[in-house]
Amino acid sequence: MNDEFNKKLNQLVSDFMNSYQKKECIIPQYYGPLPNRDEVIDITKSLRQLLFPGYFGKLSFEDETTEYHIGDMLISVHRKLSDQISSALMHQLVKSQESDGKLTGETIKTKANKIVEEFLGKLPMIREYLATDVQAAFDGDPAAESKEEIIFSYPGIFAISIYRIAHELYLLSVPLIPRIMSEYAHNITGIDIHPGATIGKRFFIDHGTGVVIGETTTIGDNVKIYQGVTLGALSTRGGQTLRGVKRHPTLEDGVTVYSGASILGGETVIGADAVIASNAFITKSIPDGTKVIVKSPELLLKGKEQTI
Amino acid sequence: MNDEFNKKLNQLVSDFMNSYQKKECIIPQYYGPLPNRDEVIDITKSLRQLLFPGYFGKLSFEDETTEYHIGDMLISVHRKLSDQISSALMHQLVKSQESDGKLTGETIKTKANKIVEEFLGKLPMIREYLATDVQAAFDGDPAAESKEEIIFSYPGIFAISIYRIAHELYLLSVPLIPRIMSEYAHNITGIDIHPGATIGKRFFIDHGTGVVIGETTTIGDNVKIYQGVTLGALSTRGGQTLRGVKRHPTLEDGVTVYSGASILGGETVIGADAVIASNAFITKSIPDGTKVIVKSPELLLKGKEQTI
Amino acid sequence: MNDEFNKKLNQLVSDFMNSYQKKECIIPQYYGPLPNRDEVIDITKSLRQLLFPGYFGKLSFEDETTEYHIGDMLISVHRKLSDQISSALMHQLVKSQESDGKLTGETIKTKANKIVEEFLGKLPMIREYLATDVQAAFDGDPAAESKEEIIFSYPGIFAISIYRIAHELYLLSVPLIPRIMSEYAHNITGIDIHPGATIGKRFFIDHGTGVVIGETTTIGDNVKIYQGVTLGALSTRGGQTLRGVKRHPTLEDGVTVYSGASILGGETVIGADAVIASNAFITKSIPDGTKVIVKSPELLLKGKEQTI
Amino acid sequence: MNDEFNKKLNQLVSDFMNSYQKKECIIPQYYGPLPNRDEVIDITKSLRQLLFPGYFGKLSFEDETTEYHIGDMLISVHRKLSDQISSALMHQLVKSQESDGKLTGETIKTKANKIVEEFLGKLPMIREYLATDVQAAFDGDPAAESKEEIIFSYPGIFAISIYRIAHELYLLSVPLIPRIMSEYAHNITGIDIHPGATIGKRFFIDHGTGVVIGETTTIGDNVKIYQGVTLGALSTRGGQTLRGVKRHPTLEDGVTVYSGASILGGETVIGADAVIASNAFITKSIPDGTKVIVKSPELLLKGKEQTI
Amino acid sequence: MNDEFNKKLNQLVSDFMNSYQKKECIIPQYYGPLPNRDEVIDITKSLRQLLFPGYFGKLSFEDETTEYHIGDMLISVHRKLSDQISSALMHQLVKSQESDGKLTGETIKTKANKIVEEFLGKLPMIREYLATDVQAAFDGDPAAESKEEIIFSYPGIFAISIYRIAHELYLLSVPLIPRIMSEYAHNITGIDIHPGATIGKRFFIDHGTGVVIGETTTIGDNVKIYQGVTLGALSTRGGQTLRGVKRHPTLEDGVTVYSGASILGGETVIGADAVIASNAFITKSIPDGTKVIVKSPELLLKGKEQTI
Amino acid sequence: MNDEFNKKLNQLVSDFMNSYQKKECIIPQYYGPLPNRDEVIDITKSLRQLLFPGYFGKLSFEDETTEYHIGDMLISVHRKLSDQISSALMHQLVKSQESDGKLTGETIKTKANKIVEEFLGKLPMIREYLATDVQAAFDGDPAAESKEEIIFSYPGIFAISIYRIAHELYLLSVPLIPRIMSEYAHNITGIDIHPGATIGKRFFIDHGTGVVIGETTTIGDNVKIYQGVTLGALSTRGGQTLRGVKRHPTLEDGVTVYSGASILGGETVIGADAVIASNAFITKSIPDGTKVIVKSPELLLKGKEQTI
Repeated sequence: MNDEFNKKLNQLVSDFMNSYQKKECIIPQYYGPLPNRDEVIDITKSLRQLLFPGYFGKLSFEDETTEYHIGDMLISVHRKLSDQISSALMHQLVKSQESDGKLTGETIKTKANKIVEEFLGKLPMIREYLATDVQAAFDGDPAAESKEEIIFSYPGIFAISIYRIAHELYLLSVPLIPRIMSEYAHNITGIDIHPGATIGKRFFIDHGTGVVIGETTTIGDNVKIYQGVTLGALSTRGGQTLRGVKRHPTLEDGVTVYSGASILGGETVIGADAVIASNAFITKSIPDGTKVIVKSPELLLKGKEQTI
Repeated sequence: MNDEFNKKLNQLVSDFMNSYQKKECIIPQYYGPLPNRDEVIDITKSLRQLLFPGYFGKLSFEDETTEYHIGDMLISVHRKLSDQISSALMHQLVKSQESDGKLTGETIKTKANKIVEEFLGKLPMIREYLATDVQAAFDGDPAAESKEEIIFSYPGIFAISIYRIAHELYLLSVPLIPRIMSEYAHNITGIDIHPGATIGKRFFIDHGTGVVIGETTTIGDNVKIYQGVTLGALSTRGGQTLRGVKRHPTLEDGVTVYSGASILGGETVIGADAVIASNAFITKSIPDGTKVIVKSPELLLKGKEQTI
Repeated sequence: MNDEFNKKLNQLVSDFMNSYQKKECIIPQYYGPLPNRDEVIDITKSLRQLLFPGYFGKLSFEDETTEYHIGDMLISVHRKLSDQISSALMHQLVKSQESDGKLTGETIKTKANKIVEEFLGKLPMIREYLATDVQAAFDGDPAAESKEEIIFSYPGIFAISIYRIAHELYLLSVPLIPRIMSEYAHNITGIDIHPGATIGKRFFIDHGTGVVIGETTTIGDNVKIYQGVTLGALSTRGGQTLRGVKRHPTLEDGVTVYSGASILGGETVIGADAVIASNAFITKSIPDGTKVIVKSPELLLKGKEQTI
Repeated sequence: MNDEFNKKLNQLVSDFMNSYQKKECIIPQYYGPLPNRDEVIDITKSLRQLLFPGYFGKLSFEDETTEYHIGDMLISVHRKLSDQISSALMHQLVKSQESDGKLTGETIKTKANKIVEEFLGKLPMIREYLATDVQAAFDGDPAAESKEEIIFSYPGIFAISIYRIAHELYLLSVPLIPRIMSEYAHNITGIDIHPGATIGKRFFIDHGTGVVIGETTTIGDNVKIYQGVTLGALSTRGGQTLRGVKRHPTLEDGVTVYSGASILGGETVIGADAVIASNAFITKSIPDGTKVIVKSPELLLKGKEQTI
Repeated sequence: MNDEFNKKLNQLVSDFMNSYQKKECIIPQYYGPLPNRDEVIDITKSLRQLLFPGYFGKLSFEDETTEYHIGDMLISVHRKLSDQISSALMHQLVKSQESDGKLTGETIKTKANKIVEEFLGKLPMIREYLATDVQAAFDGDPAAESKEEIIFSYPGIFAISIYRIAHELYLLSVPLIPRIMSEYAHNITGIDIHPGATIGKRFFIDHGTGVVIGETTTIGDNVKIYQGVTLGALSTRGGQTLRGVKRHPTLEDGVTVYSGASILGGETVIGADAVIASNAFITKSIPDGTKVIVKSPELLLKGKEQTI
Repeated sequence: MNDEFNKKLNQLVSDFMNSYQKKECIIPQYYGPLPNRDEVIDITKSLRQLLFPGYFGKLSFEDETTEYHIGDMLISVHRKLSDQISSALMHQLVKSQESDGKLTGETIKTKANKIVEEFLGKLPMIREYLATDVQAAFDGDPAAESKEEIIFSYPGIFAISIYRIAHELYLLSVPLIPRIMSEYAHNITGIDIHPGATIGKRFFIDHGTGVVIGETTTIGDNVKIYQGVTLGALSTRGGQTLRGVKRHPTLEDGVTVYSGASILGGETVIGADAVIASNAFITKSIPDGTKVIVKSPELLLKGKEQTI
């Protein structure tokens, strides 16, 4: 390593250290430990193994389902998730500048443990919901060979599984972690379901790439949506002033939304059993049982002689 | 570990065990071993290294291409793929309740070996198809610096490679595994090509996110499609009763489909050299050489003084 | 291993070796070493850790920010990136058939080192741009709990970070590597930003799946775009003859583009503070401050009695 | 890879293949699968974790001792050990040329399972023996700070633990595996205890390097030996004709043997509480309670003026 | 998993849990966390890299020796070693039943940090000692090609390096960890140097297997010993009552001890420049400059005609 | 990280950097790259797999023995070993200060390749030697169940295998690497065979811990030695002036040496078929066929009434 490079290197390091200290720097240095994204994803994978024993990981079904194995995994998930939630709570606390001695590490740890225990108790219920989702996918897709194929390979089921996990943590007011989980699913599947959304049983997303389901969306039972569907807000120009306001639509039981359709707005309600056609752009409520057809834009056909 | 948590843990484990036993449980316990998804993906990566030697993995081109290395990889792929196919066949058999002694583990293994050998023999042909696909991408994309760049980084080529592999296994009636492979590509690229589709040479998908190509689609040579294109079914309300029916369109040689267009229906045929514009929604056949233009919906322009 | 399989195996190996030698073979054998995709992705991850210390990887913020750690990482990134760039330059050279002794391995290594040093010097500046991007996301999304959540989990920030890295390498004329990086981000996020695009400060992509931003796009400060937006070329039928020509649009400061809109063509300019509605299809310039509304296609509502 | 090297390589491979086929070749090719040494060592490590929970591996004591963790480890050890024993039994069978259809894979597997179950049932008893060994080390070594230090770091305890495990498998007539285990301990500690030896409670080996304890040795309770002690055979010139004959000595309760002493011969009995001095060479029996002192060879002392 | 095995498994788990609870159980359950042996060994390896930069680990000399790399390694070693020492101190405290609130986790951590800082400050001095040891090995062994060979491969230098590290921690009254380190070296080399021993500069151990150097041994500068040498206690029958008493010999400057010799007893002093012959058994002091020759036991030679 | 620790850390780093620069520093900084010890050990393991296919590593015998696998391993070993030998040669050259432009990296690489090719050609011959060694162990040890057990677990065979590999490299004048290999075997087995020794067929080392075989030792065919045997030099006080001189004994065909015996001196010849008893100390030649018995030192037996 020659002297010249050494000098440049020292300069570079010093530039970095300055950059980290800068006022407009991204992370103020006094914030405590952050949760670890890799660890959160590992936990998510373990939870998925608990929900679908024998499908993911190296072990076969028979190996996975002894109570000893389940118990051991639960203890491990308990410890890891509790650590991550503690970091998230501590960070939230420090940031909100309330850490004036009211809460110590121990109190936060106790709170985190309590959250984890409550959360783990929900997992059997989540399994029941997921069983209905798998059934819905099988019933709704002629290309599905078997339910096993759906569990193994359908991105819709992947995204819904992670959503159902993240949603329970969201309900328990855990910061940061539910969103890390749901964006992990978004990365893998192209399906973006905010953990705050409320979704009923027998939910089926086909293909799924490009689906967006916003934070305050409400979806009933037996709903089916296709790739590219947006359940979004009309405008978010209000930014942080809109936090907590219902900005996304409601889909009642039995609704079908075909690919590429957008349904926007917090007051928009799609009535039970309604069917929304591909590429429809909906910002108003639709009555029960209605079939919404887009009157296609006229297509112009030009013959061979023409160039493009 | 205090006593209280211990009690809760025992309860939790017991809840899980009950959930796994439940009749509405997702996986009936008497099904045999399932294929291993991680293993299938590892096999897929090895196959990709065989198809594009020197591009993926740690070895350089020179190292990859001795016959010793190729032979060793083929033996390894042979063994692993044969194991996975055996599991898939066994599972299919048990599920279909035909396992009344007619087939033993040994017979299935023999069948799996035969399938693998037939499949491996197809790989040089797949390489020839892929060479034409890479050429088509290079010819069709002004942003492409070189064919090497395309192989390294174009998601379209990634998805088509995996499709061409999975399709051969699909033709050999292998259950579960082709779909695991194609959803692996879907995860990585956002391009969802069902392994049942039939696709000719010189196929180019640009950008690709959101592309859906259904199971019974037929695509000729020299076809080019863009991101967000759906080649889908008109409706799948019929569910499992539609299995095997041609539900997806046919694209003849030389067709171009621009981004966001949807072409739906098993009887829809896009004639040779036709061009389909962005966002077109097509449910009827289009004659050869036709250029389909969407008459754009009117745009309203409002000036600065207006708020949104 | 029985004799019969052995014979088949020998045949198979020989078929592969023939396939690799074939004239229409994908990679001519005399090309030198290629860059290693896995290594490029590892470098990208390290760069991201340098840009957001404490967020990614196993170490906490405190551990990450000593000058010793930063210095050590920079040396490591320097060596690895220089190796990859050398391979890319060497490959480019061999391919262009100019390697008639004018450049030796040593000269290329010197050139690569110089590029890396110039590039590393840009990183603090990239951090400043990214700080504005994170702020824009926080200000623009009511669902964002905190800036930390955005850094951890928003795909838009992920894609923009990688773009800003890849863009600097693109400006330094590094072949292959910028595109490998940007397709890595495309794989993870479904957002496809070509490293050649020019993008200002405070850039926000919400949800992002399906976004395409072409090579010659120019984007000003304070621009916000949603999932499924295409900033593309009108037609690329010209193929390689169009290399270097401006084929993609210009968005001036403060433009908003809602989901699914397409803006196409190198002469298309969207004026400052213009707002483009969902699903708009734009091929002509739009004046400053204009709000473009799509006159929705008529929706037909059909009652319950009807079947689909 | 140039042609010349290719030719050499082909020759080399062919030389190897010939060498493997040769009659005087080390392993006849028709022997079945062998046990896997790495796997046997992994199993040994797991067994040691079960015997000393909290000491080895990544988990702390608290984590290690839930019944769920223990149960899960037992299942895993059961499966792995059963596989290895099956291979060892199969190999033994094929080699002894008795595999004339009398035993199938299934029968061997059943036999292996039975052996493993019997073996695992012995582990709590082994723990009790080891507890006395640790106590003896603590009582006998003034340099020992604590029993924890002994478990963590004393090679004597390591070697005795592995011996006690391997001995139980030896008693169950498992081929190959006990010796792989005891040589693993020999590698780590320099202490070579044949799994066939019989050893009582409160056994202490200090330092231990160079200790050899032969196959037919019998050792009572409360025995203490030092580094370099050999408990061996007088001569093994008889080779395989001596198989099964008692060739190694008997040490009764309470015997102490100091460093470097050799006690040889199957009829040699060291009576209870006898003490054998350093470097003694014993080939005859010694009565109870005797202290054997070596009359040291005369030492010649030469002054400074002398050279060596 | 059949029911029968399940029953057996439950019984087995229960037997284990009982065994762990038993009064004569090896580890009382209320002891706190123990240090982690694997972690201690990792730390030892890092320390060795700091002492011999460029020799061990993946990096070359040039890479290893920037101050950034050194600083980063020191921070990492600091954190890990401080954690392990904290565990060791806490365990010692709990065991000695003094933990009546006088010391909290924080106080122990502070103490551990102070120890680590003092220890790290000793490392450059240790390097100076080791440089003399390497030189002594080179000067003393005609088979040594170079000093590099000695550092890479001589077990004597390995054992002395670890001893010099462990000794400094021993002097700082760290429990458990020094012995774990020295037994790690014992495992690798067969050389057993207690961390309590005091050893001067230019120390050379040739071959080394079987060497034992007891806790209260004192060794001057420029001493050379061979394989199988014991510097031990006369008798340790007193067990724990002898703790702290000088039980092992003193070797003054320039002493040479040939292979297999034993020097025993706390009052035994080998005077400066004395030479002790192979296999000598010494329990009394030897004056300066003396050469001790063993009058060899008579050898009986028997001719060919005789059988053994 | 508080300021105080930061200051200490900076001081510590500076102390280290000074230590590395010091004149009496162990490694002068201008030396080139050193071979990598871990890599050398990996190569050694691969060579052992080639010598005993199916015994070590994850693959079974059948998998290991295709010519494809062998060829692939040979190419890999070729590349890695050639790299390590190049480093060793370069280092030797730089150190001997002859690198005045006479040899470039390319020339050294060519030389290294030639050495490797010559070496690999010796491997089938080494296999033949090892087959005789395994046979000798089986014939000579009544405790040996089978030859497979010997290959799997006997430290003697391990040490001899590595010796036979290292010896061939020693004969080819490769610096550093043979000794790294032989000390690797010494670490594992406690058997220290210098790669310079010359050893015939059917060589058997029983137990082996503590065996030392010096650089200029010559051993005929059919020799058997036990643990703790030294074949050494009389004195090495001459240090580096003795380099190359024959300092170690010669053992002719059929010699047996029992445990703990020392045979010293370059002019000492043990005649064919001689037998040397345990603990004998031999510095003079012994005629053919002689049996050397040590007249045991008198043993004093003291009765029970006496204390020790």
